[in-house]
Amino acid sequence: MALYGSSRRQAFRFGATAPAVLYTFLRSALARPISTAFREERDTFGPILVPADKLWGAQTQRSLQNFDIGGERERMPEQIIRAFGILKKCAAKVNMEYGLDPTIGKAIMQAAQEVSEGKLNEHFPLVIWQTGSGTQSNMNANEVIANRASEILGLKHGEKFVHPNDHVNRSQSSNDTFPTVMHIAAATEVNASFIPSLKQLHDSLHAKSVEFKDIVKIGRTHTQDATPLTLGQEFSGYTTQVKYGIARINDTLPRLYQLAQGGTAVGTGLNTKKGFDVKIAAAVAEETNLPFITAENKFEALAAHDAFVESSGALNTIATSLMKIANDIRLLGSGPRCGLGELILPENEPGSSIMPGKVNPTQCEALTMVCAQVMGNHVAITVGGSNGHFELNVFKPMIASAFLRSLRLLGDASSSFEKNCVRGIEANRERISKLLHESLMLVTSLNPKIGYDKAAAVAKKAHKEGTTLKAAALNLGVLSSEEFDELVVPEKMIGPSD
Amino acid sequence: MALYGSSRRQAFRFGATAPAVLYTFLRSALARPISTAFREERDTFGPILVPADKLWGAQTQRSLQNFDIGGERERMPEQIIRAFGILKKCAAKVNMEYGLDPTIGKAIMQAAQEVSEGKLNEHFPLVIWQTGSGTQSNMNANEVIANRASEILGLKHGEKFVHPNDHVNRSQSSNDTFPTVMHIAAATEVNASFIPSLKQLHDSLHAKSVEFKDIVKIGRTHTQDATPLTLGQEFSGYTTQVKYGIARINDTLPRLYQLAQGGTAVGTGLNTKKGFDVKIAAAVAEETNLPFITAENKFEALAAHDAFVESSGALNTIATSLMKIANDIRLLGSGPRCGLGELILPENEPGSSIMPGKVNPTQCEALTMVCAQVMGNHVAITVGGSNGHFELNVFKPMIASAFLRSLRLLGDASSSFEKNCVRGIEANRERISKLLHESLMLVTSLNPKIGYDKAAAVAKKAHKEGTTLKAAALNLGVLSSEEFDELVVPEKMIGPSD
Amino acid sequence: MALYGSSRRQAFRFGATAPAVLYTFLRSALARPISTAFREERDTFGPILVPADKLWGAQTQRSLQNFDIGGERERMPEQIIRAFGILKKCAAKVNMEYGLDPTIGKAIMQAAQEVSEGKLNEHFPLVIWQTGSGTQSNMNANEVIANRASEILGLKHGEKFVHPNDHVNRSQSSNDTFPTVMHIAAATEVNASFIPSLKQLHDSLHAKSVEFKDIVKIGRTHTQDATPLTLGQEFSGYTTQVKYGIARINDTLPRLYQLAQGGTAVGTGLNTKKGFDVKIAAAVAEETNLPFITAENKFEALAAHDAFVESSGALNTIATSLMKIANDIRLLGSGPRCGLGELILPENEPGSSIMPGKVNPTQCEALTMVCAQVMGNHVAITVGGSNGHFELNVFKPMIASAFLRSLRLLGDASSSFEKNCVRGIEANRERISKLLHESLMLVTSLNPKIGYDKAAAVAKKAHKEGTTLKAAALNLGVLSSEEFDELVVPEKMIGPSD
Amino acid sequence: MALYGSSRRQAFRFGATAPAVLYTFLRSALARPISTAFREERDTFGPILVPADKLWGAQTQRSLQNFDIGGERERMPEQIIRAFGILKKCAAKVNMEYGLDPTIGKAIMQAAQEVSEGKLNEHFPLVIWQTGSGTQSNMNANEVIANRASEILGLKHGEKFVHPNDHVNRSQSSNDTFPTVMHIAAATEVNASFIPSLKQLHDSLHAKSVEFKDIVKIGRTHTQDATPLTLGQEFSGYTTQVKYGIARINDTLPRLYQLAQGGTAVGTGLNTKKGFDVKIAAAVAEETNLPFITAENKFEALAAHDAFVESSGALNTIATSLMKIANDIRLLGSGPRCGLGELILPENEPGSSIMPGKVNPTQCEALTMVCAQVMGNHVAITVGGSNGHFELNVFKPMIASAFLRSLRLLGDASSSFEKNCVRGIEANRERISKLLHESLMLVTSLNPKIGYDKAAAVAKKAHKEGTTLKAAALNLGVLSSEEFDELVVPEKMIGPSD
Repeated sequence: MALYGSSRRQAFRFGATAPAVLYTFLRSALARPISTAFREERDTFGPILVPADKLWGAQTQRSLQNFDIGGERERMPEQIIRAFGILKKCAAKVNMEYGLDPTIGKAIMQAAQEVSEGKLNEHFPLVIWQTGSGTQSNMNANEVIANRASEILGLKHGEKFVHPNDHVNRSQSSNDTFPTVMHIAAATEVNASFIPSLKQLHDSLHAKSVEFKDIVKIGRTHTQDATPLTLGQEFSGYTTQVKYGIARINDTLPRLYQLAQGGTAVGTGLNTKKGFDVKIAAAVAEETNLPFITAENKFEALAAHDAFVESSGALNTIATSLMKIANDIRLLGSGPRCGLGELILPENEPGSSIMPGKVNPTQCEALTMVCAQVMGNHVAITVGGSNGHFELNVFKPMIASAFLRSLRLLGDASSSFEKNCVRGIEANRERISKLLHESLMLVTSLNPKIGYDKAAAVAKKAHKEGTTLKAAALNLGVLSSEEFDELVVPEKMIGPSD
Repeated sequence: MALYGSSRRQAFRFGATAPAVLYTFLRSALARPISTAFREERDTFGPILVPADKLWGAQTQRSLQNFDIGGERERMPEQIIRAFGILKKCAAKVNMEYGLDPTIGKAIMQAAQEVSEGKLNEHFPLVIWQTGSGTQSNMNANEVIANRASEILGLKHGEKFVHPNDHVNRSQSSNDTFPTVMHIAAATEVNASFIPSLKQLHDSLHAKSVEFKDIVKIGRTHTQDATPLTLGQEFSGYTTQVKYGIARINDTLPRLYQLAQGGTAVGTGLNTKKGFDVKIAAAVAEETNLPFITAENKFEALAAHDAFVESSGALNTIATSLMKIANDIRLLGSGPRCGLGELILPENEPGSSIMPGKVNPTQCEALTMVCAQVMGNHVAITVGGSNGHFELNVFKPMIASAFLRSLRLLGDASSSFEKNCVRGIEANRERISKLLHESLMLVTSLNPKIGYDKAAAVAKKAHKEGTTLKAAALNLGVLSSEEFDELVVPEKMIGPSD
Repeated sequence: MALYGSSRRQAFRFGATAPAVLYTFLRSALARPISTAFREERDTFGPILVPADKLWGAQTQRSLQNFDIGGERERMPEQIIRAFGILKKCAAKVNMEYGLDPTIGKAIMQAAQEVSEGKLNEHFPLVIWQTGSGTQSNMNANEVIANRASEILGLKHGEKFVHPNDHVNRSQSSNDTFPTVMHIAAATEVNASFIPSLKQLHDSLHAKSVEFKDIVKIGRTHTQDATPLTLGQEFSGYTTQVKYGIARINDTLPRLYQLAQGGTAVGTGLNTKKGFDVKIAAAVAEETNLPFITAENKFEALAAHDAFVESSGALNTIATSLMKIANDIRLLGSGPRCGLGELILPENEPGSSIMPGKVNPTQCEALTMVCAQVMGNHVAITVGGSNGHFELNVFKPMIASAFLRSLRLLGDASSSFEKNCVRGIEANRERISKLLHESLMLVTSLNPKIGYDKAAAVAKKAHKEGTTLKAAALNLGVLSSEEFDELVVPEKMIGPSD
Repeated sequence: MALYGSSRRQAFRFGATAPAVLYTFLRSALARPISTAFREERDTFGPILVPADKLWGAQTQRSLQNFDIGGERERMPEQIIRAFGILKKCAAKVNMEYGLDPTIGKAIMQAAQEVSEGKLNEHFPLVIWQTGSGTQSNMNANEVIANRASEILGLKHGEKFVHPNDHVNRSQSSNDTFPTVMHIAAATEVNASFIPSLKQLHDSLHAKSVEFKDIVKIGRTHTQDATPLTLGQEFSGYTTQVKYGIARINDTLPRLYQLAQGGTAVGTGLNTKKGFDVKIAAAVAEETNLPFITAENKFEALAAHDAFVESSGALNTIATSLMKIANDIRLLGSGPRCGLGELILPENEPGSSIMPGKVNPTQCEALTMVCAQVMGNHVAITVGGSNGHFELNVFKPMIASAFLRSLRLLGDASSSFEKNCVRGIEANRERISKLLHESLMLVTSLNPKIGYDKAAAVAKKAHKEGTTLKAAALNLGVLSSEEFDELVVPEKMIGPSD
């Protein structure tokens, strides 16, 4: 951990309120042989030392020193960094149409491309918990791209031939870039990773629904025995939940595809040219192959993040669905001897060294833990979304990172659950059949033949004596063994009658 | 509060575990001259006394005694009761097609119509906090309608010529009726009351946006002075938020229009006839004039309430929007002397007896309190929605009542806010202009003329000395009064340039 | 519903912005023979008509007309009204010490006493969703008590010999009275009703723990079979959860006992006399027999409601506990044939007319629904608590009502659950024993005798062939029947060894 | 990123369902010259390849392959790893008392010490989203410590002279170790880092409260001008909130100090010796210098995590407080020209290059974003806490990590806020005075002298004409300039009268 690091836990820490002293200290520190060299960068606050091997500049460095919150684990999500790469590349492209020097523009595009590919991740050290506009991460992107573009052009860091503000951030403000990268990152992840994961889960559940279509089993309502259904029908409910989940997140995309870019500082578009907003959205759409458009109203797009609250609501609903499905599956798979035991879950790791059959439903556990976290993140996003003031909501990095984390976790956990659990689920046909035929619920089939009162008497006797319905019926002499077998056919109880 | 009442706070309370003793007590109680007479009703548990002037029966009475939770204030929402009226009317209609005696069917339809009109509300005493399937409220509806239908046919209560189960509940189960009435109640309220309230608010905000379109004001980001925009632009952001809010709740309706009816006990449709599900959805659609259809998958429709979690997510997003709008408005209207003071809010009640101008933003307060409650209810619905087990989610009454409450409060508060606040908002043009022209932010207009460095010097001087930019500029001699006035034109700062 | 009513659903509604028109309308309305007569009241806004038979005055009437949100169901909770009775009585008492005319003071005390007993509830028509300071409910209390005190003194309504502000509200402000009644209502309910309900539940669970102390059963971890424990041990866990729940809410009381009274408008105590705050807290303590004290810092007491957020956190934890307990109990009681079936839950109502033994765990369902709502209300309270601005949090009525609702529901549902479920739970000893002895988990007892490898072989064989451990062991010839019975003794597996 | 890595994003991924194929693949892979070598480890599932330079074993490796959720960022929090070091060290110490070979015991202690110091962090690759019992992280600890202890004893990895289960995990189960390390990690962090951060913030706010004690300013209620108070009084409210926050988290510690260790698999303590639980708690207490004790009821300690829900409730309350404080401070510091402008916040980074005085309240923003996330995590923890089943809550890693993240973020953000904001806040005395004296609220001081009616007339005139109260009063001729100055003294309005 180097001198420029950001950990309160360390003995030495930059005094944020004393840059001059700090500067002196670091200068003298440099006199000693330490592993990391520094270079001097400047902004309107004056000079500041920056690690020599890093591409960031003064404003990034100040944020690093002023927001020592949470450590490395709390860095701005990589998807945001990559989206900055996409945006800055597109901005350079459009800015060239509006007069940006092509030499500079192309160098920016190349540098930004590298950012979008994650190649410069190590130069983005800032944490989520910075200014609520994400300005510092925007400046981090501007500084890194400017320095890298200068490198590409054969210049040294800090020469500022390519200027972070004048060139890389041209026609932009943090206030419109950060919401733009939020939307790019979110919509890209939803399409590239999240929906595919859900589709895979959907298909796997659907396959099970088909595979199990003829297995009649006891139904359960209020956790109590109820009329039968097929295991395939039970899984068709889960399948439908996931199918609708995909529809739910999809239905929110139209508002995620709206980009704030072009609104600049307060939404008016001051310092941009007419048409810039439309062109940049088109460029991003082309770059990402997704139907991004310019936001209908830039004031809304800067001051509120309702689109994230809405999409997070879809994730919250999906979490609700998956919590239900995973709970059902672990309970149906409970056992091996003292649970419901209708499903046999794949065994991925030792449950118990000596206890064969103790297969812990660990994939269900990972998934349901994720669901709980997604529900929590939804509240965080809601609170952040409701707290905007005037022209700018300043909970942006929190909203973005909580959403992206929910998206990643829910997608990954769905994939893991599909691959390591659902795909391998088997029906314990013997157990299912045993429970079904022991059930008293089938007594309802006798009504038409022997009447309600006698049927009830059969059930009561069987319940009291712990015998089967058939034994009770024969014992009471209300019908013959053949008659019973003809009447009590669970397979006829799984749908409406003609 | 009569003997049959349901309050733990009262001295006397039915011993739920000792029906025989209770029965004896009540019988003897009847010997004494008390104001309420009782009649005896029966179910499979045996006899039970029910108030003579009430239409409900044994199962309702048992629930009343067994769930002494929260008192009258916690009764099942009226919209659910009315929706039961709609459903039971439609069920009778469809059942006649399938052979229900028309005499009985028509009497049921008439009785159910009365329920749907709220005429029999006093006969629905049950609270939300009962069985999680809502079975007891379904039986309440069945009992009341059966007894009322019998009355219509000139019979006495309890004769059961019209039978609660065999006739009123025919082809139905609590497990499909309750989710059906949840959807009917929710979709009806959304359309009849909630969306109109939002539209009214939208139109009013839009009208203000137009009214204020030429008022240039200071922008605020990070709560700090920023570049200017028009007050109309500011309100256009709010307008867009509400517009999208309407789209959001609308986008969830396709799944609210799906009815579980026809799934009966576990989703299979046992004990219904083929086609019953489609016909009943059509009948409800006709009755309500809304596009209800039968649910694609009945297992999902009974076992999960994802549609409510999703729609509640839309309400949560709308609450987020309204929280932001109401917060902005109260802060912009803060004062009269020591706040921002840009808006003049209508005065609806005395703010202070001696303090003219102290207009408390009480409508903002009522609305934001509602928003907080809606966010909370959303979590309650999420928790309930995630906890379904197997074939039946048993958090139904809670989910329904929390959703309907959110809907009602958010709609009513939006209407109240529109009528008693937004509609009457006036711009304090003098104050707005004063703040705008005092602002240092306008210095950016000088850049092209005098360059960045001199412009910054002007601003620094003005800030340090507490003077206007103009005074500072003249004092520094960087331009003339005429030049200043020509350059510093906020009206030119509110959009992109050509 | 009378003319002065407050329902948007009705055709006629008071135009809040046109009091003059309204006044004219109502005057002329009075000329017609309608059931309710009106009297004229005045405030600084001018005259307004108030129902003649109601004790409230002008400010209450205005609120009624301006906040048509949610209808009657949304009235300010009765506990708040009663707490106003307590507070106003104590204020009059202390004010007499500071010079209030004893004739007036005693009349106020008598009137306030009636309010505290709930006798004047019908004169408190205002809803929760009003001004966020609760000012209008404070004025409602002042107006009703002034008018009632005047009645007591033989005067007519509106004569204002006893003045709502000068006498009833003397030395007070809404800003300190409302938080004071919030604390009085909350602390009183916690002590009088909530903790007793939890204690009753605790005792009942503890009794079961003792009753079941010798019943050895299979344990379950990950929902899978695990090593045994006694049913009494299992219930001791629940007992401990409730015991700690009581400690948790108790630990928050010190901050609920702090009263804001004496802070007046912004916390400074302007317009009170030194010592008033201490005396009034002492008077409330005497009146309620609870250790109320004056708040250490009045600024905090008006501007924040952290004490409610904290206490609501305790309710949230208790809801978590009860959710777990109720879920366990319904799953352990699942069946009758196809579930775990270890517990027999009391049957309080027909589960199914023909299906004996189908006992739906309806009390668990009501309780868990309540728990979900409590978790939701906690979020609402958190959001409200976090949104205070400057010297006054204006989410007071929402915070108070959500908290009191959680308290009432959680207390009532605990009582209902205890009385109608826990108290009557029986162990299904036969089923418990069967499951225990079928379990493969007991194989661990064989290790010391036959070694790990052979023990594993026994278990694998039993699992594969679906037989008992004993059968497998005998079949493999690793030990004799007597040896097996001596070794496999679940009763020896339920604690640490010596 | 090596072959054994865990990223779905990579082209190659271990097929969890095909260990044999995988094994083959990796074996052949090893034939090719790749940078990382592997060794073979075994468990009851068979052989598996593990990176040669890592200390973990087979079970860790399986988890790594089966739970590809979230990537490196989602690793189990370091505090949990370190707490495992503490626990395993103590366990070895106590186990030696019960007969563990001292050679092995001491080696374990040394290895565990290294874990507790974070020296072996790279050997703990597992993510939060694994089995809900945390078993895999417990095994990770056992495997790493066993291998490291073997190294210490001069043996090779995998020789298992020191056995992960028989020695390192002796007398333990994952089911009691994981809750134990949760409590150790949480209580340690609360004491070592969180409370000190809050105390620092408290002291700084208190210092400001003293510094500002004589600055009289306008009060604000409903965001509207109200009676005056001192800036010191305003800060005293914040100080009290933080003071109570410290009390709140402290009040929950008694339940966090209870350790589950000794409960083993289901809470009974099977496979431990009597007294083990007390001894191990004492050892942990000695090691950490905190008053840990053995849990009163081990069944509760494994099956529920109410203690975390409770403590998270305290964090939620503190987040509520800090949200309020930070919101106030940024609004009071809003400006420089068009806001309230009463506070001057320290400037830590450029707000705007050309706009002097635009100091964005970035520390407030970071802090309030953290508060929102803490509120969200609290809901996640509540959901996880409520979902335990039977003898084991299986949301443990999620609960632990969400709590520890909240704790770290809230502590760090408090420190950052204190150091970079609160400490440097200055009062803008000129502005405060100007606002105060412009306020109409001071008119109340005239009542005693000129009467209510004339005072109201003065205020109305001043409000209408936009003049000062004094100008209006002189203009109306109700009193002289000297009289006005004598009467209108805000300094006399900031407390109760004698």
